[in-house]
Amino acid sequence: MNVIEESVVQESAAAEAAALAWRARYHEDAPEGFPAEWNETLALMLKHHSVRRYLPREVSESTLQALVAAAQSASTSSNLQLWSVVAVRDAQRKARLSELAGNQRHVLEAPLFLVWVADFARLQQVAVDHDAPLEAQEYFEAGVLGCVDAALAAQNALVAAQSLGLGGVFIGGIRNHPEKVAAELNLPPGVVGVFGMCLGYPDPAEGVTAKPRLPQAAVLHHEQYALEPQRELVASYEQRVNDFYSSQQMAQSWVGRVLKRMAGPQSLTGRHRLRNAWEALGFKLR
Amino acid sequence: MNVIEESVVQESAAAEAAALAWRARYHEDAPEGFPAEWNETLALMLKHHSVRRYLPREVSESTLQALVAAAQSASTSSNLQLWSVVAVRDAQRKARLSELAGNQRHVLEAPLFLVWVADFARLQQVAVDHDAPLEAQEYFEAGVLGCVDAALAAQNALVAAQSLGLGGVFIGGIRNHPEKVAAELNLPPGVVGVFGMCLGYPDPAEGVTAKPRLPQAAVLHHEQYALEPQRELVASYEQRVNDFYSSQQMAQSWVGRVLKRMAGPQSLTGRHRLRNAWEALGFKLR
Repeated sequence: MNVIEESVVQESAAAEAAALAWRARYHEDAPEGFPAEWNETLALMLKHHSVRRYLPREVSESTLQALVAAAQSASTSSNLQLWSVVAVRDAQRKARLSELAGNQRHVLEAPLFLVWVADFARLQQVAVDHDAPLEAQEYFEAGVLGCVDAALAAQNALVAAQSLGLGGVFIGGIRNHPEKVAAELNLPPGVVGVFGMCLGYPDPAEGVTAKPRLPQAAVLHHEQYALEPQRELVASYEQRVNDFYSSQQMAQSWVGRVLKRMAGPQSLTGRHRLRNAWEALGFKLR
Repeated sequence: MNVIEESVVQESAAAEAAALAWRARYHEDAPEGFPAEWNETLALMLKHHSVRRYLPREVSESTLQALVAAAQSASTSSNLQLWSVVAVRDAQRKARLSELAGNQRHVLEAPLFLVWVADFARLQQVAVDHDAPLEAQEYFEAGVLGCVDAALAAQNALVAAQSLGLGGVFIGGIRNHPEKVAAELNLPPGVVGVFGMCLGYPDPAEGVTAKPRLPQAAVLHHEQYALEPQRELVASYEQRVNDFYSSQQMAQSWVGRVLKRMAGPQSLTGRHRLRNAWEALGFKLR
């Protein structure tokens, strides 16, 4: 093949890979003209699935440093850098955190458990040292800033980890008992865990694949938000996701799952008192 | 060169690229042994900087579809998918949103402005159709779920955009006037804007580079959180970031900036009433 022929073959292979990635993500054909371009980063992201079983292989300090460098490279509101991360490897501490997070076995079994925290303690120390006020921390906006900053950073870390062959899963369960998690990790006032993240090298025996998501038209709106068309899109999703649940021997119905999960305070595994917990940990959320 | 020699040269080039990326991010030498491995995704993330000036080139629908596919591929708590995104291209709507976001010129000038929203309206519609309760939405936990879900998705979209040669910047300013933003975008009750995102092809004339972040030791903790050592790390950061500010003709002092930004309600550009705004938009945040 000459150079032009080779380039045509590569483009065609990329288009095919993109179409397959779309189908795996949505369980439907890619829209016409998709994609304009394709690359390794898009391929990596689209094939994401949570990993909860790991090989007995440590995550090195150098690898952790790379993940945190990726995390710190994410955007942060006004460069405030309102987050920190606590890396837990100690088996007993992981066991205690696993219990606090609803007895999730993978928290104990992952070689590395990261707790991502919203962090105002660093700024409080700066403020005290400069005899300056830091009253903005008392507002709900501070909670949003901390949650968003932590999430942007953590998502970069997870994608970075996946690019290095690791896998992982977010653990919202650390919000079940925020004060006990804070005590375990020696968090000072003004610091609260937002979520955890299990990381390790995937055990291929787990055999999970990407979970289908809602049709893109349900979440992507043009110029203004449209609710009514989502009814039909959710119905078609319900069918597709049930095929997936069947293949994974999981109980069916996305609608059933989300309605059960959000029914009321009793379905929040302790998180109906999250606001009180944040207040106890130094966030007034006014 | 034979294959082994070639591989040694590649590894050495990767190690050098990694060391340069670390130095650009932290303005200090990379730790010994860094990195264990290096790749294009890490390189892309570490060189991130916000882009606020754009070439006059549209972002195609196919590209937008790829970004949203990447966003939907991010983790979402319990697969609840509690976010949506409104893509705004209309010049007059961008102008109005720009004004609401504190007259940020790049909101108007970006060819594509995305508003990332925490979305419970989709589930509310499902709940009403099934005559089922959705009381968990009344809790602060629902706000955390929505903010985190939206941020994980949006960060994937931004990295995906950067992998395709685009650049962008998060716009927290849409929280200055949440009700007006909701009216502009026809958001139903249970949907609230978390942040915006300007996207476009970078104008090289902007000439910005990556902003240094806090030393990694300030944000990465092992086993338990440590506050006291951060005092010295912040002091060394203050020096490094001032060198950066000088090079960009920006006013100096990270400490001065963050203390000004978080001093009190008057420094929150309207966001001291964010809690009331969320309540008006259907989030009780109990």
